Amino acid sequence: MSKAYEDRIRNAALRSRVVSAAEASELIEDGMVVGMSGFTRSGEAKAVPLALAERAKTIPIKITLMTGASLGNDLDKILAEAHVTARRIPFQSDPGLRRLINAGEVMFIDQHLSETVEQLRTHQLPLPDIAVVEAVAITRDGGIIPSTSVGNSASFAILAKKVIVEININQPLGLEGLHDIYIPTYRPNRMPIPIVAPDSRVGLPYIPIPPEKIAAIVVTEKADSTATINPPDDDTRAIAGHLIDFLKHEVTKGYLDDRLNPLQAGIGTIANAVLHGLIDSPFHDLKMYSEVLQDSTFDLMDAGKMTFASGSSITLSAQKYVDVLSRLGEFKSRLILRPQEISNHPEVVRRLGLIAINTALEFDIYGNVNSTHTTGTNMMNGIGGSGDFARNAYLSIFVTKSIAKGGAISSVVPMVSHVDHTEHDVDILVTEVGLADLRGLAPRERAPLIIRNCVHPAYRPALMDYFTRAKAMGGHTPHVLEEALSWHIRLRDTGRMA
Amino acid sequence: MSKAYEDRIRNAALRSRVVSAAEASELIEDGMVVGMSGFTRSGEAKAVPLALAERAKTIPIKITLMTGASLGNDLDKILAEAHVTARRIPFQSDPGLRRLINAGEVMFIDQHLSETVEQLRTHQLPLPDIAVVEAVAITRDGGIIPSTSVGNSASFAILAKKVIVEININQPLGLEGLHDIYIPTYRPNRMPIPIVAPDSRVGLPYIPIPPEKIAAIVVTEKADSTATINPPDDDTRAIAGHLIDFLKHEVTKGYLDDRLNPLQAGIGTIANAVLHGLIDSPFHDLKMYSEVLQDSTFDLMDAGKMTFASGSSITLSAQKYVDVLSRLGEFKSRLILRPQEISNHPEVVRRLGLIAINTALEFDIYGNVNSTHTTGTNMMNGIGGSGDFARNAYLSIFVTKSIAKGGAISSVVPMVSHVDHTEHDVDILVTEVGLADLRGLAPRERAPLIIRNCVHPAYRPALMDYFTRAKAMGGHTPHVLEEALSWHIRLRDTGRMA
Repeated sequence: MSKAYEDRIRNAALRSRVVSAAEASELIEDGMVVGMSGFTRSGEAKAVPLALAERAKTIPIKITLMTGASLGNDLDKILAEAHVTARRIPFQSDPGLRRLINAGEVMFIDQHLSETVEQLRTHQLPLPDIAVVEAVAITRDGGIIPSTSVGNSASFAILAKKVIVEININQPLGLEGLHDIYIPTYRPNRMPIPIVAPDSRVGLPYIPIPPEKIAAIVVTEKADSTATINPPDDDTRAIAGHLIDFLKHEVTKGYLDDRLNPLQAGIGTIANAVLHGLIDSPFHDLKMYSEVLQDSTFDLMDAGKMTFASGSSITLSAQKYVDVLSRLGEFKSRLILRPQEISNHPEVVRRLGLIAINTALEFDIYGNVNSTHTTGTNMMNGIGGSGDFARNAYLSIFVTKSIAKGGAISSVVPMVSHVDHTEHDVDILVTEVGLADLRGLAPRERAPLIIRNCVHPAYRPALMDYFTRAKAMGGHTPHVLEEALSWHIRLRDTGRMA
Repeated sequence: MSKAYEDRIRNAALRSRVVSAAEASELIEDGMVVGMSGFTRSGEAKAVPLALAERAKTIPIKITLMTGASLGNDLDKILAEAHVTARRIPFQSDPGLRRLINAGEVMFIDQHLSETVEQLRTHQLPLPDIAVVEAVAITRDGGIIPSTSVGNSASFAILAKKVIVEININQPLGLEGLHDIYIPTYRPNRMPIPIVAPDSRVGLPYIPIPPEKIAAIVVTEKADSTATINPPDDDTRAIAGHLIDFLKHEVTKGYLDDRLNPLQAGIGTIANAVLHGLIDSPFHDLKMYSEVLQDSTFDLMDAGKMTFASGSSITLSAQKYVDVLSRLGEFKSRLILRPQEISNHPEVVRRLGLIAINTALEFDIYGNVNSTHTTGTNMMNGIGGSGDFARNAYLSIFVTKSIAKGGAISSVVPMVSHVDHTEHDVDILVTEVGLADLRGLAPRERAPLIIRNCVHPAYRPALMDYFTRAKAMGGHTPHVLEEALSWHIRLRDTGRMA
């Protein structure tokens, strides 16, 4: 084995296990459960899954694929279209895979991201036969130092019988020391998770496994996929404005101080724009306790607004990726990457009192939120961590534009066609139109507020008419059942809700 | 003041504050927010609310009424019908109040029971102006020793400007020492809740408030309402049987040991019957970490099957009430009553790995559960603690009979008309027909299993037909939107689902 990898494979005995991706992929057999690294398209194993898809062209291989969250480099598409992915857990965001899920060809188990390894540890899901984990290095004791995400990699490696490590020599060694690997103790003697602030370090900087479990090492060099973040537009700026005005008002009332509570933000353009908006806000010394750290996190740090960020992955645009990875030394003392079980853990989320900002696909006039399904049936991506945060946050905020597809779709409907977050878990709704603060309100009080403050003017009269007629029929949560899903039926049949 | 209360009012200075219920009720003014003790019809303040309803006959008094959960002694009915209750938080179960909620006359904020005081503490709900708390005694330092429930009484008393204490001389002094009052520390320095087992004692045996906050003391003697628990019937016995068989199977596989994990059970006949079923099971050394302790808890203790129970209230049938209160000394070392914030806390529920058994009003073929609404619009009781437990439990189990109203209603429907527990939070469904284990299954796999194992034979063909036609239309969660709520529409219009 070349000396070039000595700093990456520090356990000398393990250097003999370096093989090609094709050879390593042969450890994965038809019918296996495979746990792969990767969370929001960062830090995924890159070479072995490709080799597996290649092998599947000649012999049928079907696996249950578990990851942290979505995979980059089109791997979810490639594996699905090669018919390797028979079952997929717990999240995805790939159009190709989505198509096969909605056609009923791939069984997708859409889970709260904090729960997958809890269910593995208690045998409620089948244990992974093998784990495939991207790393920047292996320690002398066989410890795996992850790259740009932790996701579920630690528990996968600990629980699997065998582990394949992909050493990615283009992921900088400077990532070492960023990770904090903490695994909850086993029941019935489980102890409190000792995290009391976003910057609490409570674990190890590597995944501790016995070196003999590492069955193969593959050296790779492909970069993470970069994120396509749409630039802020008038609507996302308006959403950010409404939310920041609201937070300022909470500070004025003395309910928050101007450092706010730790922030969580879902992935995507709107949440990124909202965080960006904080650069020009009066808030300071901000902290994040989130799952994905996007461009805005580092922009807030560079602007001197944010002092610390804890997440499970770093997912950046092309330009930011180069910038951040080249200045890792500068950021490292202000960053922690944790297992997603811990970044999203209900215990820690409730303790820290997060301000949680997530994106809704649609919400209804009573505050129920759909994050996953179009017209009640087709899966988009999955619930991800939004439920982990929304349920236990201090403030559970959902943001969306009031309309989609040029106005053909209203994001506010009489009744959501699928519920991911119930009315009990939603505090604040924001669109570019305005903000509705639902706290302490009954359903009949929420509806007119949501209609007035969040609905696009083109849909406002129709929704108010629905609510008025529903209210006349009575009930705690008035509905005209015949019409409750009629907007979705019209959308399905005509491509427009009205 | 009579010497008779010296053992009940141990702070001598406070004895001068004893007044009549009518006098005490005058501390409550129109427009106030009032926090009252009471959880699942036990330990509620009894005299002051009655006096308040009486006063409201001559002058208009409207209040926001917050409690632990439901009130006994018809107080929710009396206060609502006297038009005292303008807003009600966070739970109720009274037919009279329910009627006014569904008519839109009382605004009801239906909350997770763990969250109310969290929202008070952070000013997300208006703070109580006054708290009215039933107690068995007041300590020398002014500490309030609750009676048969803790509920939200501790935080109400701590956060309110004034406190009225109802000393109920018929609640035995033997209840002293049963309570464990722990209040989470304030953010940003909140520490882990140190409970690591159902029997962890981490707080004080009384509610600590400065004695000068006690504005009035009323001496009462009315008993708690007793619970009407229907005796087990063939259906509830069958439900218990299916669930116990399942648990035995989990033990056989080595996933649980025969002491099981700590149990939680919702209130009501079915959950009580399931727990009763454990008396004749091979399980032993059982523990509960629940909110309500019902007859079955004490029967399990008497049968030598249960060693410890932690809850927030004790709600018993008439016969059991007399029996348990007369043998308190015997039970006390095996019981703790906690604030509902702690009995239901996501942090502790996840840590302990509960087996959570709650009752569904209806569920759908994909595993979404409705616990609160009939025909999508009318409130029954509220979500209560079911969401606190279901989301974070090790096993989230929902039970119900497969049909209601002599077969006019199927408890399993194409799409629930209101979602309280999403598909992501439901592991096991049980009816008298059988049990469906949904863990690790995609929606298309769950539907045939639920239809086969849980649906009444009279409704099975229609549901299978619905699923077959929906599946032909495609989607991750196939639905025929036009028909998704048609069973509820038929029920509303004809009184029958089919």
